[in-house]
Amino acid sequence: MPVARGALRPLGVDQVRLDPAGLLGHLRARNATATLWHCADHLESHGNLDNLRAAAGEPDTEFAGMWFADSDVYKTLEAAAWELASAPDDAELRTLVKDVVALLARAQRPDGYLNSYFTVVEPEARWRKPDWSHELYCAGHLFQAAVAAGRTGAAPELVDIARRFADLLATRFGQVEEIDGHPEVETALVELYRLTGHRPYLELARRLLDLRGRGLLGQGRFGSAYYQDHVPPRAAREVAGHSVRQLYLLAGMVDVAVETDDAELFAAAERLWDDAFGTRVYITGAHGSRHRDEAYGDPYELPADRAYAETCASIASFQWNWRMLLATGGVRYADEMERVLCNAIAAAVSADGRHFFYSDPLHLRANHHSGGEEDAARRSSWFRCACCPPNIARLMASLPAYVATADDSGLQIHLYGQAQVTATVAGAPVRVEMTTVYPWDGRVELTIIDGPATPWTLALRIPGWCEAYTLTGTTTGTVNGGPAEAADGYVRLTGAWAPGARIVLDLAMPVRRMTAHPRVDAVRGCVALARGPLVYCLEQADLEPGALLDDVRLDPAATIEAGAHADLPDIPVVLTLSGSLADGGPSLYRTQATERPATPITLTAIPYFLWGNRTEGPMRVWIPVAPEPRTT
Amino acid sequence: MPVARGALRPLGVDQVRLDPAGLLGHLRARNATATLWHCADHLESHGNLDNLRAAAGEPDTEFAGMWFADSDVYKTLEAAAWELASAPDDAELRTLVKDVVALLARAQRPDGYLNSYFTVVEPEARWRKPDWSHELYCAGHLFQAAVAAGRTGAAPELVDIARRFADLLATRFGQVEEIDGHPEVETALVELYRLTGHRPYLELARRLLDLRGRGLLGQGRFGSAYYQDHVPPRAAREVAGHSVRQLYLLAGMVDVAVETDDAELFAAAERLWDDAFGTRVYITGAHGSRHRDEAYGDPYELPADRAYAETCASIASFQWNWRMLLATGGVRYADEMERVLCNAIAAAVSADGRHFFYSDPLHLRANHHSGGEEDAARRSSWFRCACCPPNIARLMASLPAYVATADDSGLQIHLYGQAQVTATVAGAPVRVEMTTVYPWDGRVELTIIDGPATPWTLALRIPGWCEAYTLTGTTTGTVNGGPAEAADGYVRLTGAWAPGARIVLDLAMPVRRMTAHPRVDAVRGCVALARGPLVYCLEQADLEPGALLDDVRLDPAATIEAGAHADLPDIPVVLTLSGSLADGGPSLYRTQATERPATPITLTAIPYFLWGNRTEGPMRVWIPVAPEPRTT
Repeated sequence: MPVARGALRPLGVDQVRLDPAGLLGHLRARNATATLWHCADHLESHGNLDNLRAAAGEPDTEFAGMWFADSDVYKTLEAAAWELASAPDDAELRTLVKDVVALLARAQRPDGYLNSYFTVVEPEARWRKPDWSHELYCAGHLFQAAVAAGRTGAAPELVDIARRFADLLATRFGQVEEIDGHPEVETALVELYRLTGHRPYLELARRLLDLRGRGLLGQGRFGSAYYQDHVPPRAAREVAGHSVRQLYLLAGMVDVAVETDDAELFAAAERLWDDAFGTRVYITGAHGSRHRDEAYGDPYELPADRAYAETCASIASFQWNWRMLLATGGVRYADEMERVLCNAIAAAVSADGRHFFYSDPLHLRANHHSGGEEDAARRSSWFRCACCPPNIARLMASLPAYVATADDSGLQIHLYGQAQVTATVAGAPVRVEMTTVYPWDGRVELTIIDGPATPWTLALRIPGWCEAYTLTGTTTGTVNGGPAEAADGYVRLTGAWAPGARIVLDLAMPVRRMTAHPRVDAVRGCVALARGPLVYCLEQADLEPGALLDDVRLDPAATIEAGAHADLPDIPVVLTLSGSLADGGPSLYRTQATERPATPITLTAIPYFLWGNRTEGPMRVWIPVAPEPRTT
Repeated sequence: MPVARGALRPLGVDQVRLDPAGLLGHLRARNATATLWHCADHLESHGNLDNLRAAAGEPDTEFAGMWFADSDVYKTLEAAAWELASAPDDAELRTLVKDVVALLARAQRPDGYLNSYFTVVEPEARWRKPDWSHELYCAGHLFQAAVAAGRTGAAPELVDIARRFADLLATRFGQVEEIDGHPEVETALVELYRLTGHRPYLELARRLLDLRGRGLLGQGRFGSAYYQDHVPPRAAREVAGHSVRQLYLLAGMVDVAVETDDAELFAAAERLWDDAFGTRVYITGAHGSRHRDEAYGDPYELPADRAYAETCASIASFQWNWRMLLATGGVRYADEMERVLCNAIAAAVSADGRHFFYSDPLHLRANHHSGGEEDAARRSSWFRCACCPPNIARLMASLPAYVATADDSGLQIHLYGQAQVTATVAGAPVRVEMTTVYPWDGRVELTIIDGPATPWTLALRIPGWCEAYTLTGTTTGTVNGGPAEAADGYVRLTGAWAPGARIVLDLAMPVRRMTAHPRVDAVRGCVALARGPLVYCLEQADLEPGALLDDVRLDPAATIEAGAHADLPDIPVVLTLSGSLADGGPSLYRTQATERPATPITLTAIPYFLWGNRTEGPMRVWIPVAPEPRTT
């Protein structure tokens, strides 16, 4: 397929205004008021900014934290830049951006090099430890911050800083056969190319991709797949190794493929998509099954309890799917964006926006033994390796950008939420108002505020989870006289819309009992509950005293009520259903199937993304179904 | 309970002669001819011996491998010392021991310190890195080698070397509040005390135990439980942290409790036993569920595929249970010794005795992605961290020691195998001949060759897995005229046995369909097959082409035939049963339970410990039962 330039055009982050009343808008607004500033504060208190001050030669500062701590600064800066598009009058935020950019300018070496660790701690090791250094990884995050600052006009001088460094990279890495152990710079270089039109950045991105898979980084402790150096990306047939690295690499592969019209490379990305989403993704959209090497494991190896499911991998998956969507217009990519955003990513942040999960497991047992920050029973305010919180900040701040796209025919709505979308279609301004409480309800009302006089097409995504929907129009003729059929996952409504035209899409949202492929050994005999895009879970906090979640069984024939719950006023839709408490007996292994009386109980399921905001305790997405299968 | 001196007395390793025709004897003999020499060769080729030469100041040698590489030398030396009890005329083995001991004498510092890494590489860091250094861990393995050399007379001069180092430890660590991040020296010091009668060694062991749980080692990366420093051992209520460290510590706890009559400390060991064997042990007897920090995880967290199940933890569990058995005479400890030996430990070694698993998982999928040596689909000849192979060597070389014990009343047989046992009962020599092909058959014939003229008691273990047995005697009166009842897991036969008296114990060995406690989420809806002490497994190699093990289902009602199999002449008893091949369909998650036609097939199960000796491919102990449970 021809992939050049992509099928759809992104809108600017300032072209969609999310209303805080909706879920998407709530996520963005909470990020702006809580998470972003929380990150900024921690960059100061944890030494990330002091590291850069030390690199700038400023006295009384020394290096602290991880050697790639600069990347947290860049991600926060990127978040601030995106956020300024939604809040251009936020003087405090503008000052933050200005100050950090000025600090970066001071920390940058005369030759363009910018990395506090390799300036302050190990200057002699610059470029010498590619398997480990994260130098290009940090550079990539700088470039992405610069792209945000450039696109939103938040800090044009950051683009200059980034370009000086990128020019140094283009010179050096255009000549040597070296790559970085942590992919990220590839997608960032393409974005910088898109911003500047400077082709050497794109060429370097392609070169860095093509140098992978030659074993340049050695085997390390976990094998070359950990570094994404086990196979040339265009020849890869399976996702493998460190999941964040794999997913950032995939974003870069799509970017390079699209900008260089490289069908072979794009086909590889599609192949890996089929593999990942067919055999190795959690029902929450999270990726990565192994703690040991933060890796994808075997196909169908998807433990709920030991899901690594790193928040950064979820964000990277969102970014990869966004690029696939732009390239192809395929609805499955928008489906995965929605799934991972509403479940794994949203779950990573506490209700107060100031606590985070590094990993987003689907099951927490009673008496959980934590082996570290990536294995916590509660969200933490910060991490030794603090990659996730500022990554959340930059994604949430850029959320408006993913709601809709445009093409020559019109406007496409991919993510539903209370919002106003503006775009240019056929040279004329288009403005659409979306009114909805989605995902709590499937009804989405769209009002055309403005548009060209000539016919144009409004495409509305019918999510993969949706088996029935209705479409009605209040303005004669706009909906072709009745429910429209979706083609390839989108209902396309074409008309010369009059201002005030109104379309109502109603997506049916029955509760779905989901099962996994039988090769997913970890959840055999279990069911997950979902409604619309939201995966639900059970939490210990909703059980009667004395009942332990570890013993809960679902009644497969039970009726499930979806609606408000008196005890949970902050959650618009909870699920109520009947189940039982099993008595497992004393022995760990036995020769007889246990047939003990089960106690009937009433269960309450809440959206997975809201778990862990009350008392610490067990949680599970996959619920065993009673009775246990006969085994003897 | 009073624990002083223990309930049972161990026999010397030379008091039991294992016949190579039996399984126990086969394991010992293969170890003597293959594994032990394989280890000795690798100590030379991988630099472990050169490290000691460098410490001795010998030119042209430099440090290689892990900083605790000396421990591999000590374990191999211990193996050789035990083996010399079975093969006192093996001149080559005697030379090996002599040469290595002479090297250790040269490498030892004048003050008694002996550690090649902290002599050669970081002399200034001696005792400075207790969380990490493994200095006392290595010392412990030296002491254990010395105990073996002392008990068997293989190298009395090694005892002097060990004592010089132990005296240094007693002086230093009697004064400072410091402990080692890796327990091991505690049990070794008690053993050295038992050999020498020098009480300061016992006192140091107790002191080192009592210093744990005060956070002396900090949190490290994985928390203080990783170091066994999270709770005072006598207050512990759960096994936790790095499983090998926990289990070595437990061996030391029992040793100190027994020798100091410390009922509180012993009660803690019993409490941890109940916890470990009630909630956190694999059906193969292996311990440790997490790769990340080599740790026990949550209760009931027992993934079959990602079982860490380190071979060293299995060996440590055997040693801990042996100490519990000696202390109490409780049959459950002998049961666990047998279970872990015949399954997890035996599986760690290839048929040729020269390849090893670091981890012993219970499930290997098709298309396995390995993240390192502890996650391999095949046994390796050696490891970067080579703790397991020489640990196997020392256990297998000492196997004769665990078959039987004595007390004032007579002789106790704990492990069955073709063997001759000699002991002293009531001051008179006792000699018993065991004739059996156990565990392939449950018939064990015992002939009294020699014994005192006064009545004495022969106690025979009735394994926990055995639900029916018969006991017959060929000499009138010896078996009290018929089947004897077992009390506390042992049948106790008392008589003034005439030479030639013969007792036949017949343990029924039907195939058992085992299920796990329903909180063990990882194997829900699955069955494991066992016969006698052996756990069985399915292997891809026994399936027809085109059939994938990942899709195999067990027919819960199927008849299971146990017997010889024409295609597998080396395995005395395989299981044949009917099952089916499921068709899981394409999608990873779905709303409808899949009801696809299954293809009936015939399955062959082999003993788990023999897996992985043919073509590489999937294996599973826990087999899903058809049909899948109804989930909707």
